[in-house]
Amino acid sequence: MTQLPLSLEQLINELSKLPGIGRKTARRLAFSLIFNSDKNARALADSIIRAKKELGSCSICFGLSEGDICQICSNYKRDSAVICVVEDAKNIFTIESSGSFKGVYHVLEGAFSPQNGIGPDELRIYELEERINKSEVKELILATNPTLEGEATAHYLNEVFKEKVELITRIARGMPSGGDLEFADSNTLSRALEGRRSF
Amino acid sequence: MTQLPLSLEQLINELSKLPGIGRKTARRLAFSLIFNSDKNARALADSIIRAKKELGSCSICFGLSEGDICQICSNYKRDSAVICVVEDAKNIFTIESSGSFKGVYHVLEGAFSPQNGIGPDELRIYELEERINKSEVKELILATNPTLEGEATAHYLNEVFKEKVELITRIARGMPSGGDLEFADSNTLSRALEGRRSF
Repeated sequence: MTQLPLSLEQLINELSKLPGIGRKTARRLAFSLIFNSDKNARALADSIIRAKKELGSCSICFGLSEGDICQICSNYKRDSAVICVVEDAKNIFTIESSGSFKGVYHVLEGAFSPQNGIGPDELRIYELEERINKSEVKELILATNPTLEGEATAHYLNEVFKEKVELITRIARGMPSGGDLEFADSNTLSRALEGRRSF
Repeated sequence: MTQLPLSLEQLINELSKLPGIGRKTARRLAFSLIFNSDKNARALADSIIRAKKELGSCSICFGLSEGDICQICSNYKRDSAVICVVEDAKNIFTIESSGSFKGVYHVLEGAFSPQNGIGPDELRIYELEERINKSEVKELILATNPTLEGEATAHYLNEVFKEKVELITRIARGMPSGGDLEFADSNTLSRALEGRRSF
């Protein structure tokens, strides 16, 4: 059995390190890159290098930013008195794509995880406290994930900031839109019943 | 709704040009590249550039090669009197991975396609003729795809070379290994019956 050419083998190896890309898909992508126009492959390589070079953390919210301060924190139309706290910078883009939030964000860069040694000091909680001390914050929306880790983090933040912030809220939990009661787990169902509203 | 940072948007665009990668997957891959270690992202960019630079066509069989002549054509253990004709350079790796072929290859770089203006002159048939004229070829295996285009190409090659080559064969068509009769189309089934062998 003949081996693949070395540079092709290396390309397949690198592609298969990406999430959800197995060896077979990596091979298909590699062939496509090689047989595609030179322009596409080089544009992809360049855009990887450029993105790595230009993207950093916003010094206020720790979201992704090309400059020192991100587009959201520097937008005077956003309500800086409402801070939505998320675990991860990519969560910002998910919430933004819903188009239903006009405040600003704060990225914790993780959630509590005792087994991985991640406690309050490993998260950007000190920076959040500084933001709250410096300017008036009317509402803190805790949008950490509805997981054990995310819930623990949200509870902790509520304890720490409940004296300092007028209103602390947690994102709603319930049935996802388009979901089917038959396939919902009991935890989701009991949360959906708990959180019911008058029709 | 805030836009993604420009360099991130560009990276997502380039990734979504790959086959089978939609915008949502491209976004997931882009985030993974950005939040991964610097090393992985740069290694991927480098390996794309290197593969594009180093991989060319073998001047004998037109398969993928890092040098002038590919690993298979330059391997003296391979039987150069048996040529397996394929449509596409990537088909070589598929056949090689089966480990059941010890001859050499010839890549046509396509198949007949009248609607796209692809006839004999657009394929590497002249080069195949030269190989057959220059050295003794005992068997020509026609391994073009079992599609209309591939069949037409195989028929044409058989007509052109039947006086020059002792044995011209076509890869078998029938039930795929692990297949189920219930789900086989009638064309495959009739080919499987036609090609039956004594047990």
